[in-house]
Amino acid sequence: MWQLLQFPLCPFSRKVRVLLAEKGVGYEPVREHPWERRDEFLDMNPTGQVPVMVDTARKIVLLDSMAICEYLEETVDKAAMLNGTAADRAEIRRLVTWFDVHFYRDITALLLHERMEKRIVHRAAPDAKLLREAMKAAVAHLDYIDYLLDHRTWLAGSTMSLADLAAASQISIADYLGGIDWKSHEQAKRWYVGMKSRPSFRPLLAERMPGINPPTDYETLDI
Amino acid sequence: MWQLLQFPLCPFSRKVRVLLAEKGVGYEPVREHPWERRDEFLDMNPTGQVPVMVDTARKIVLLDSMAICEYLEETVDKAAMLNGTAADRAEIRRLVTWFDVHFYRDITALLLHERMEKRIVHRAAPDAKLLREAMKAAVAHLDYIDYLLDHRTWLAGSTMSLADLAAASQISIADYLGGIDWKSHEQAKRWYVGMKSRPSFRPLLAERMPGINPPTDYETLDI
Repeated sequence: MWQLLQFPLCPFSRKVRVLLAEKGVGYEPVREHPWERRDEFLDMNPTGQVPVMVDTARKIVLLDSMAICEYLEETVDKAAMLNGTAADRAEIRRLVTWFDVHFYRDITALLLHERMEKRIVHRAAPDAKLLREAMKAAVAHLDYIDYLLDHRTWLAGSTMSLADLAAASQISIADYLGGIDWKSHEQAKRWYVGMKSRPSFRPLLAERMPGINPPTDYETLDI
Repeated sequence: MWQLLQFPLCPFSRKVRVLLAEKGVGYEPVREHPWERRDEFLDMNPTGQVPVMVDTARKIVLLDSMAICEYLEETVDKAAMLNGTAADRAEIRRLVTWFDVHFYRDITALLLHERMEKRIVHRAAPDAKLLREAMKAAVAHLDYIDYLLDHRTWLAGSTMSLADLAAASQISIADYLGGIDWKSHEQAKRWYVGMKSRPSFRPLLAERMPGINPPTDYETLDI
């Protein structure tokens, strides 16, 4: 049985958890707060990041969310999320990196620091200027999603892929932290409501980080 | 024929170029300076980053260095660099991310900004404090490489892999910019000299960025 070290507002853990659910792979979620920098955890993963996926019986430790997703793609046939030609797969991987690196850096990381870590670790108020910057960056990213959906049914092409899972994971955490305004983004909104309604995604939207509440429409499907 | 948009001190382009050479895939290198932010280039790649690999005749545009490497692994059998079981491959991919993200952020990106961009774009002197920080981080990363080589012949296991290519690419750019001190890192040094001596690597070490000269032992094999 896999154990997945994670915490509810980690967008990378969320991506892996949605993929595990789509593929029907069972796992035990184990809470790990990377900001506590536990020695045993750092020994396991020198980056100090979650998710980490462990199978104690088989002595397998998987680090890095993309390496974990590639592992699941290679070992579980069900619900393949890297479909198509080699060029199609390159486009999916390029978009996963776009959301994991650029969306995360410009939006999710800022919001997590200002609205979660500052509250939990530093007991300080968020910086309003940085919050505005994150929200402004989110508008640009939603514009890009609208642009992709002008030409495609799903973000990377004609079928749902890991790109959709990565994007929806980042967006849902940003949304939890009040960083998303759907105004003038009808296409992106319709796509995201589709993602939210999936049985793989809904249980994650029901989880809460103690002391931090999402907006009222975070879970609903009629945003 | 592939075209590869790149510049000589881009560590991610270097990784792709070493892989292309190992696999015996021909390509035309095309100089692109991301800091000039050409409109046509940004239209092609919204991240504004090199490398970008293009086949005009087949209308294929590949973005993101890891997506390009995975594409080459999937389409060219020769010199496979993601070998072994699914867990072995996860370990390779995890280490590629370690060097592409963490080594780059802590060392290469700092050195490129202080020693290249400041000279070319801003005509300013480097910040000595940041250079010291990068060199200190490099010592920690070389320690980690020594630790990996205590247990393994190559960084990810018993065969050369994309992890070695990614690591050597980052290190060689940091070395060009004066950020690497091999003292007390015998194992890492021996491994790196092995990488430097490969026919896939040597031509890249002969390239120069105008106005920026590497240390005298940058190209030699008896460091």
